[in-house]
Order: sequence, then structure tokens, then C-alpha cells
Amino acid sequence: MPVVPSLITFLSDYGLRDDFVGVCHGVIARVNPEARVIDLTHGIDRHDVRGGAFALARALPYLPAGVHLAVVDPDVGAGRRAIALELADGRRLVGPDNGLLWPAAEAGGGVLEAAEITHSPYRLQPVSATFHGRDLFAPVAATLSLGTALARTGRPCDPAALVRLELPRARPQADGLLAEVTAVDGFGNAQLGANHEALEGLGFRLGHLVEMTLADRSTVTARYVRTFADGCPGETIVYEDAYRALAIAISHGDAAQTLGLRVGAELRLQAA
Amino acid sequence: MPVVPSLITFLSDYGLRDDFVGVCHGVIARVNPEARVIDLTHGIDRHDVRGGAFALARALPYLPAGVHLAVVDPDVGAGRRAIALELADGRRLVGPDNGLLWPAAEAGGGVLEAAEITHSPYRLQPVSATFHGRDLFAPVAATLSLGTALARTGRPCDPAALVRLELPRARPQADGLLAEVTAVDGFGNAQLGANHEALEGLGFRLGHLVEMTLADRSTVTARYVRTFADGCPGETIVYEDAYRALAIAISHGDAAQTLGLRVGAELRLQAA
Amino acid sequence: MPVVPSLITFLSDYGLRDDFVGVCHGVIARVNPEARVIDLTHGIDRHDVRGGAFALARALPYLPAGVHLAVVDPDVGAGRRAIALELADGRRLVGPDNGLLWPAAEAGGGVLEAAEITHSPYRLQPVSATFHGRDLFAPVAATLSLGTALARTGRPCDPAALVRLELPRARPQADGLLAEVTAVDGFGNAQLGANHEALEGLGFRLGHLVEMTLADRSTVTARYVRTFADGCPGETIVYEDAYRALAIAISHGDAAQTLGLRVGAELRLQAA
Repeated sequence: MPVVPSLITFLSDYGLRDDFVGVCHGVIARVNPEARVIDLTHGIDRHDVRGGAFALARALPYLPAGVHLAVVDPDVGAGRRAIALELADGRRLVGPDNGLLWPAAEAGGGVLEAAEITHSPYRLQPVSATFHGRDLFAPVAATLSLGTALARTGRPCDPAALVRLELPRARPQADGLLAEVTAVDGFGNAQLGANHEALEGLGFRLGHLVEMTLADRSTVTARYVRTFADGCPGETIVYEDAYRALAIAISHGDAAQTLGLRVGAELRLQAA
Repeated sequence: MPVVPSLITFLSDYGLRDDFVGVCHGVIARVNPEARVIDLTHGIDRHDVRGGAFALARALPYLPAGVHLAVVDPDVGAGRRAIALELADGRRLVGPDNGLLWPAAEAGGGVLEAAEITHSPYRLQPVSATFHGRDLFAPVAATLSLGTALARTGRPCDPAALVRLELPRARPQADGLLAEVTAVDGFGNAQLGANHEALEGLGFRLGHLVEMTLADRSTVTARYVRTFADGCPGETIVYEDAYRALAIAISHGDAAQTLGLRVGAELRLQAA
Repeated sequence: MPVVPSLITFLSDYGLRDDFVGVCHGVIARVNPEARVIDLTHGIDRHDVRGGAFALARALPYLPAGVHLAVVDPDVGAGRRAIALELADGRRLVGPDNGLLWPAAEAGGGVLEAAEITHSPYRLQPVSATFHGRDLFAPVAATLSLGTALARTGRPCDPAALVRLELPRARPQADGLLAEVTAVDGFGNAQLGANHEALEGLGFRLGHLVEMTLADRSTVTARYVRTFADGCPGETIVYEDAYRALAIAISHGDAAQTLGLRVGAELRLQAA
């Protein structure tokens, strides 16, 4: 895996309207002027820890190994711990201990070493009650990007005690599949916690029709295709998305809005 | 022209809500850790190939020579070709062969060499059906930014066979000018496919009144001024914008919304 | 204070939908290919000089010393001057002389040297009437980031003649405090031009109830707490924000929208 010295990737729910992200970049540059920061996304829905966790884990294979900073932190200022992790594959993660880092840690082969960084010697004092991205996570990430040992950034803690968050898995049923919406992108395409193989295991082949039962018990018929271009405009399609997950789209339309699909909603897929 | 080693500029319709752009940055950093990526814009309207093409061509003179990656790709996964181009002025362009790169190629003196990169040895395999930005265009752009010869990134192809897209030009009439809206910016200012000289050729001078006939045949009177500050609040003005094109604005207002101006709409301008 | 060579921070009201920001990055890279640009924010409300000025001054302590480019410029193309400043703390600021840079200049210990850069030898000619970010401010900032002396970028001018803009201060009253809303963030949290000490000076302690009289003379009762996590969902809270200013939030809600708080609005705080 390519390792880029001083590389930091940064994911958050801060949005880009305010200066939260820019200020964190400034803090990083003060600590490590050579750091190269890739903004993975700051468009995670506010406080959506699951959405942030899935996005990070999903993106990781496409990112060079480095320090991966993630901040979706609804309980900032309350009791949750702040952590830095070293993974089996050499990546280092920094963020709140609320599950946000867990799927990425698993994707990286598991946690070799963990540090509780709430009182890190590298934090900016006084640490504010509301902006740990700036005062704690960014300076610790920047320090790690200098090659500093994880143990020096905080107090060792037990990887087994970290807050866990599991990716939803599809549940096969007698004549169908139950799957959860795991993400909705800006185009209204809804990713499911299920893959190609699950659908093929049920006997579906490209071109087949799929009946989907939505959360409100209404049903929609979709065609199982390879890509957007295989759907007629306005047609609902099921396809394998770029992360090899099943996804639902409306060709030239917005499936999430039209079908009322939200993250966490459960769908039932069966032969039409 | 300044050439910045390892410089990549990146334009797309991906938006910044999702991690599409961040993941492409990650892929680029894996291939060329020294690459410097300038996000030209990711706010092109979804699938608006014309809008992306005009924005790229218009911005080019302000960008150092480098690799210019552009992805507005409504037919991803369907038959369209993927290409890399080397221009007479030394710039290299990467994107889909759907016209998106054409006006920029013309602005750069024309295409010296073209490669069909669909099966590039530098693509990420398996190439997904929907995210060629990540799997094909970003890694090829990053490879080119290392100084790799264009011919090594794909199969040579005939520049004369590239998909073309022409910039709209104003059409003079007996007593006026027909011009198309080529862009609407975030402030609601509408750029026209016509310049200063076209209007002056009709005898218009600064301060004159212009009668504009809109697509719905309604008419609006605008004043021909040098800049926003010359209009009274609420006044409709015609001015030369920063790209030396004629544009329509409402001082302290949103012309596109108020007047219903959309990209592609045709206006008629004549003396009021 | 850490000084990062070739560092430029960039704040504007350009938004990220258009290519304004990307084109400025391109212009900077042509002048100084080694420049590292941190986008502080481009989400300042359009033409909100005060909002931009406060954001810049507030962020400055978290940014390495470098060149700080700021463009919120409602009078571009009209009479206002364009300036570059050298501060007592070594920072250099570039932008319009409309007050935007003033609070940052004060935060940086005051202006040692000022240059009027309207006719800078480093501007891009012809300078457009509407896009001085690209044609004037970006190339001058990039030139300064190369270490060029301020005096070479323009004509010396008298720091005493710069346009000033004062940060609003809370005004104590017999039994309360008048304070102005200075900023509203993307989450609807409203920052006040008042600090912790002002409220404590009136006898308020954490846990106390505060009666706030809004601009429309309606009143709202808020609880004075340390952080979001101390409020019940839906509760209005007053807290010290990450910039050590008092701020108003609704726990898990949007205070600005719910209470109709806008920048510039004046609130009265007293014991409930």
C-alpha cells in the first residue's frame, strides 16, 4: 500500500459554509507545515455517526496510508473518549470513540494499538467545550503525521474496550432479501447494505425485475441492470454501485426523494 | 506559460456533499504523492457537459499548464470513449470524449496527440460501471502528472474523430443581436455567448438602454454599464463580465431567477 | 508564532458552486508554484463585509503566519481602494480597503506598513471591473508569498487612513446586558458580541436562567450551560463558544431559524 509521508485525510460533518474546516487546516499547518491534507468529505449529515463511519471505511482502500482524521461528534464536551488508533495495515486514525472509526479500523485489519487522547500533550489549551476538531483532533493528527509514536499522543487504552459499530448486512429470507439503506448520495442514489452476490444467490440475473417493498409497505418494481445507462429515463433500477454494493437509482431522477428512501430504512427485495 | 510540475486541475459535476472528489484526490495521491491538485470547481450542474466545457475553456488561461482532469459524464458505463489529449500549448487533458474537453482543446491551440484510455494500463481494476472518475480518469491524470508519455496511457486515436462541441456565437440581425445564455453563476448573473464588440458594433455605447426580448417573448429594459457598481439597486444591467463576455445582472439582485434565464435560452438585444 | 513559507490563507464570499475560487488558486500557482493555499472559508454571506471581517480576525490565532487573502467586495469596480498590509506580528493581509481586514489587523498588533495596490505591477492586465480576486488580489498575495517586500507591490499609503470596522461590544445596563449577534453558523448557532465575563459580571453562574429579549420584543428563556451536551433536546441555551464568545443555541435544533436571529440583531439578556 502506498504510504505518503505527512498525509492526512479529513472527514467531518462540519460542512463548508463556516470556517470550521479551514481553521482545522490552519491548526494542522502550524504543527506540521509539510502536511498534505485531503478533504475526504465534510458533507456527512450533521451528527450522522453511522453515515460517517460507512463513508470512511468505504473510501479507505482508495486512500494512501496516512493519518485519517474523522470528526462526527454529537457528544463533544460530554463523556465520550477521544482516541487515536494504529491499525494492522499501518494506517492511523484519530477521532471520537463513538463508533465512527470502528468500521475503518476493521477494514484496516484491526487495531494494534489505541491511545486515549483527551488530555494529549499536543492538544490546544484551553480545549473548548464544543470544537474538539480544532483543539484536540487536528493537532493530534498533525503530530502523528510528523511520525510521532502513537503512545506519545495520549494514554494507552485497551482496543477491546472501543465503541463498536457494525455495518448492516443483508438478511436472506425464504423468497427474498431484507436490506438496509446505508447511504444516500447527492444525486439521490441509495446504497444498500447488500451486495451483488446476495441478489444473485436468490437467482436474480441482469435484466430481471425486482419487486421492492418500502418501509411504508408500498411496492416499486425495479430492473436489475449494470449501470445508469442501462435504464430508460424515469425507470427505477437496481445496480451494483462503485463500492460493489447494491444501490437503487432512478435513471435521470432522484430515487431517494421520489421513493422516500432514508438512511436506516429497511427494504425487502423479491422477484417481481 | 508557467508550467507547474505535477499540477492537476480538476473540474466535475460531483458536488462536495459526497466523498467522490475526496476519493479521487486519494487515488491521485496513491499514484503521485507529489501531485498538487487544484479543484477548479465541482459545482457544474449534474450532467451539464456544455456548462462544464465552457467553464474549463474559460478558466484555462488563468491556470498553469499541467494535467487538466474534467469529469461530466452522463454516459458513463455506456459507449462513450475515455480520452487523454496533448495540446499544442503543452497542456494535457483527461476526461470523457463527449465534447467536454473540446473547447479547452481549441483554446489550447488544438490537439497534437490523442489516446483512447478506456483500457489504460493505469486504470484501477475492476473498473466500476458508474465511477470512472475514480477508476480511470484520476489514475490516468495522476500518471500523466508524473511526466509519463501520453502514448503509454492508452491506445493512439485520431484527433479528427473526437466529439466536438462548439461555443455558441452571437448572431447579428438587422437591428439587434441574438445571443444565448452560456452560464449562470451562483449570484444569478447570466453570461451570454456574445461580447462587448458585438454590442458596440450595433452602435451601443455605455449608458445606453438595451431592450432584451426573453425566451417567453416578454421584454426587459437594461442599462449598458461598466460594472455592478454603476447600476442602481434593483436595476437590470448589461455589462462586460470578467471573462470579457456580455452578461446580465440585476444590481444587488438575482437576474437569472427574476428574469427566468437558463443556460441555453436565447435572448434578443436591440436599442430600447 | 509558526511561520509557514509560501502559506496563503483565503477567505471570500465566492461560494464553491462557481469556479471563482479555483481560478484564483490557478492564478496563485502561476505566480508561486510552491504556494500552499488554505481555504479558510468561501461561505461568507455575499457582500457581508462585517461577517467576513469577524471570521478572519477570529480565525487568525489558529493560522500560521503567512499571507492572508480576503475578498468580500461589494464595491468592486467602484472607488474603494485595494490594499496590502504588513502587521506588527509579521502577518501580511491582502484585500479591499472596506473594513474587511481591519479587525484582523488589530488582532495582529496593528499595521506597520500599508500599500495601495490598485495599480500594482503584479496585477493581471487588463484588470476586469468585477473580478479583482483573480486579477489583483490573488496575484499580489502570491507575489507576497514569495517573500517580496510589501512596498514593491504597490504605492505606500498611510495606515491611519484605512477604513475601520469595529467589533461590536456588549453594553452593560442597570440589570442586564445589550449584545449584538455577530455570526450565525451553519448549524444555526448565534454568536454574540459579548463574552463569558460580561455575563458573570452581572452575577450569572452556570445553570442560571437567562431571559433574552429579542429584536421583536418577544422574550425567550435560556439556560446558561457549558456546552451543547448540557442542554435537553429542544432547550434554548447560552454557552461560551469555541471562540470564547457567548452564543445561543437550541440543543439538537436551529436557534437562528427558530428565534429569527440575524447578524446585527441586538438582544437584551437579564436574569429570568
